[in-house]
Amino acid sequence: MGGIAGKIGGIGLMKNYAQLRQEVEKTLRELQLWKGEPQALYQPAVYALGQGGKRIRPVLALMACGLFGKDYREALMPAVGLEVFHNFTLLHDDVMDNAAMRHGMATVHVKWNADTAILSGDAMFAAASCLVAKAPKDCLPEVLDAFHRLALGVCEGQQYDMNFETQSEVSKSEYMEMIRLKTAVLIAGSLEIGALVAGAPQEDVKRLYAYGNKIGLAFQLQDDWLDLYADESKFGKRIGGDIRENKKTYLYVRAIENLKETDRKKLEALFTSTGMNEEEKIATVKALFEKANAHEDCRAAVNQLFAEAGTEIDALVSSVDSDTLHALKAFTAGLLGREY
Amino acid sequence: MGGIAGKIGGIGLMKNYAQLRQEVEKTLRELQLWKGEPQALYQPAVYALGQGGKRIRPVLALMACGLFGKDYREALMPAVGLEVFHNFTLLHDDVMDNAAMRHGMATVHVKWNADTAILSGDAMFAAASCLVAKAPKDCLPEVLDAFHRLALGVCEGQQYDMNFETQSEVSKSEYMEMIRLKTAVLIAGSLEIGALVAGAPQEDVKRLYAYGNKIGLAFQLQDDWLDLYADESKFGKRIGGDIRENKKTYLYVRAIENLKETDRKKLEALFTSTGMNEEEKIATVKALFEKANAHEDCRAAVNQLFAEAGTEIDALVSSVDSDTLHALKAFTAGLLGREY
Repeated sequence: MGGIAGKIGGIGLMKNYAQLRQEVEKTLRELQLWKGEPQALYQPAVYALGQGGKRIRPVLALMACGLFGKDYREALMPAVGLEVFHNFTLLHDDVMDNAAMRHGMATVHVKWNADTAILSGDAMFAAASCLVAKAPKDCLPEVLDAFHRLALGVCEGQQYDMNFETQSEVSKSEYMEMIRLKTAVLIAGSLEIGALVAGAPQEDVKRLYAYGNKIGLAFQLQDDWLDLYADESKFGKRIGGDIRENKKTYLYVRAIENLKETDRKKLEALFTSTGMNEEEKIATVKALFEKANAHEDCRAAVNQLFAEAGTEIDALVSSVDSDTLHALKAFTAGLLGREY
Repeated sequence: MGGIAGKIGGIGLMKNYAQLRQEVEKTLRELQLWKGEPQALYQPAVYALGQGGKRIRPVLALMACGLFGKDYREALMPAVGLEVFHNFTLLHDDVMDNAAMRHGMATVHVKWNADTAILSGDAMFAAASCLVAKAPKDCLPEVLDAFHRLALGVCEGQQYDMNFETQSEVSKSEYMEMIRLKTAVLIAGSLEIGALVAGAPQEDVKRLYAYGNKIGLAFQLQDDWLDLYADESKFGKRIGGDIRENKKTYLYVRAIENLKETDRKKLEALFTSTGMNEEEKIATVKALFEKANAHEDCRAAVNQLFAEAGTEIDALVSSVDSDTLHALKAFTAGLLGREY
């Protein structure tokens, strides 16, 4: 790593995604915490964390720390805590959503049972808080404040998401607020925590948060789009899963807003139907989405958010480490399937 | 309040249980946190916290703080956080134990559903962490360390308790370790956190923790005993509930250890039976407990722990506020149904 960061500590600092991810994996795996008793409590945590995942949140926290010229290792424990927190939410969400698979493996409540997913999830939340609290003492209150804000936000987002299941009409702005809370605040909060550990000026902490928020929103919209348009072999899940589960995604919400009454009623009926041939249902819904131009609308929103994110990060006032900036931009562009 | 504490801030400080409890109630009720959106997330938390309870943990934290001559209000937010944490564990435990009633009211998963109990519980855990993190900055890392230790401990205790359901033999020492984790670490940790906020010397923090641990263990054993010997009108739940649920309490564990083979097998059979007349089952089990002298054994253990707790608190090296010490001793004695 070049710039200021490379000189701290006198040893070369890792800088790119692959290297940071590896460091996160190693730290996660070697945490003493998981060796505690009873193992019935900790094994599901180790299993869930071993299912993989891109480690987006800790890597973002580490990059944010490095960006302001601080040794990224100062943020390592909080960063790993954010990944543990993320996985805790997955354990509980999978119970609530009755999801059977994640990363091609059985979810914890399927492999064990719901009680195990609840309790091991709780222990993971406690462990996550414990790791985040290992932030340097001088920035600890600010880091904790950011962490608690994001933790409550994620709960609020999940609640809105559950409300949507039985709520007949969901507006675009309600949908955007839900994904902001459920997805974007954790992405944004990870960057914020990394920047706080680095002692970045408040203005830049806010900019990086805004950047993360835009990236997080774009990431979720992209995911909604990929549900129908992904290359199944690379996507890791079956095409049309959201439609199978009658999930009110951005595509659905926009289609409902854009379609004329007859088609709107048809789409609404499809999302309450049961027992219909699944492939037929997916094809019919897809056609309605496209008739409403919801798919193009979604792509445009992703582009717009990505552009806005770029504006935020280019407006940082600090003199940042250019290699880390490059790595961060490349990483987030990659998350959205873009070249950088 | 006399002594040093009474002079801080120039206004009289509350000192006894009733007054401190009232302050906790008021603070809990007025937390801005519960006014957030979506209300579907926060209403169950307000409901659960409104079900009552003795507010043992926050009162202990406040008393511990006052004991060392510090204004108890310094510990108010962490104390309230401990109550929110305790109630979070109740929400999740009630799902896992399939408990329908608490303090004579429907539990959250019954009044709403399991998903609500899980998610609102998670939000309460986040809120609890947030409140505990409002401890004064100079003791924050120590307070958080105590909080995370107790949070993981409570999860471990609940896991052992769940393991016991399917574990054929539970030894007395396994049982004591389970209740230490499930009940005593939160009582002890509450006193510890109060003492840490007060800046008590490490030696006294440890003594107060040991005191809380003994009181917590005694409190649980007392509860096990009350399941059969309480005055039902004061107890707030039906006599014999633990037996109805085949719960391996101290009475059961001791009876199994003390009974000769024939009676032991009879007791074991009773605890796996279903469909038996409940009153008959309770009477038969009670007779076996008494044959094994488990009830006297339990009383003796409570007395022993209470005496040991007294030794711990009388060995504090600091010059403590005598009114607060009196209030603390009276409160804990009262919890165990004793005069002071």
